[in-house]
Amino acid sequence: MNLEVKNENYIEDLYWRYATKKFDKERQLSEEDLEKLLESVRLSASSYGLQPYEIFVIKDGKTREKLREAAWNQPQLTDSSHVLVFANFKKIEESDIDAYLDNIARTRNTTREKLKGMEEMLKNTILSFSEEEQRIWGAKQTYIALGNLLSAAASFKIDACPMEGFDKDEFGGILGLKEKNLMSSVIATVGYRSEEDRVQHLEKVRKSKSELYTIL
Amino acid sequence: MNLEVKNENYIEDLYWRYATKKFDKERQLSEEDLEKLLESVRLSASSYGLQPYEIFVIKDGKTREKLREAAWNQPQLTDSSHVLVFANFKKIEESDIDAYLDNIARTRNTTREKLKGMEEMLKNTILSFSEEEQRIWGAKQTYIALGNLLSAAASFKIDACPMEGFDKDEFGGILGLKEKNLMSSVIATVGYRSEEDRVQHLEKVRKSKSELYTIL
Repeated sequence: MNLEVKNENYIEDLYWRYATKKFDKERQLSEEDLEKLLESVRLSASSYGLQPYEIFVIKDGKTREKLREAAWNQPQLTDSSHVLVFANFKKIEESDIDAYLDNIARTRNTTREKLKGMEEMLKNTILSFSEEEQRIWGAKQTYIALGNLLSAAASFKIDACPMEGFDKDEFGGILGLKEKNLMSSVIATVGYRSEEDRVQHLEKVRKSKSELYTIL
Repeated sequence: MNLEVKNENYIEDLYWRYATKKFDKERQLSEEDLEKLLESVRLSASSYGLQPYEIFVIKDGKTREKLREAAWNQPQLTDSSHVLVFANFKKIEESDIDAYLDNIARTRNTTREKLKGMEEMLKNTILSFSEEEQRIWGAKQTYIALGNLLSAAASFKIDACPMEGFDKDEFGGILGLKEKNLMSSVIATVGYRSEEDRVQHLEKVRKSKSELYTIL
């Protein structure tokens, strides 16, 4: 790996991206591009590395019709190439932390015994959160993954639209989350912008540097 | 802008990055690199584009000593090049929405009158949230910016450590947030990894693709 390679286009990519309102129905993500996107999101940081969420990737047309109805009929749900639903754990169980520690032991070729200190810290901290705190904390972690998804998509010149405007309960019903200790947190549709989407030509609106930052 | 340029190193960059535990005290971010990082984060997506947060960028040694004490004495607070504190709005005021709409009108060379529909939608939606809902929603938006920061840093070969382990109240006191309708949400330290940081050599631990994703 060449440590000297810096992506000088990162900022240009962020200017290129926008919350795509109208997707080109005819253009679908290639398997390869979808794989790159999912691999990027899989590598997202999360608190303690726990990744207390799962992600649903929906191509199926009938499911997407239902999701669209549960998302104020927004056309991105059916016209994009894929819909990603980020679903955080409703409750974090001791077994979730054990599964994570098992993964560390396996990946790093060590033993659970040597991870005893980490185990105590994780269990004492996370299991002492109330269920509501766990849910909010888990949902926040999905937003890191969402931020990474948006940057990754832009880097690969894939369009995306992050969306909070959907009925979480109805999504839970459609995707069978309720039986799974999961609740939908945020979604993103991915694909390619339609040439007709006028939003792509609008100037990006952001706070100025001096409004956003205080330098101390 | 060349739309065909795709950053094929994005995934490699994500493998390169890790939550840096030990920074090289002698290496500071150049002005240019800091600018690129801040510009990237400024361009982060947020719900409706409102960016209901401010970001503190702290170089000052005395302030960082105090922040370190309020963050379980973690050395990254003083040994990194800069500390970034993401602080979401405690309460979103009608004037915040007006300032955003003014920015849209100015940036896109249009009038507030033409944004009337958007104004009603934004005010009806956001101002109907309880203060607690506004705080949680605002905090989530900072996590999108954090996700983007981590990806941007990796792309520029800058190291970073995202951190939730700090006392939000004490940070609020040190940074004078309480008088400002702000509360600290999450922080990141940025700089360059020390050669001595053994964590950089550990294998990255993530859920497998099949554990993380359900494809429908």
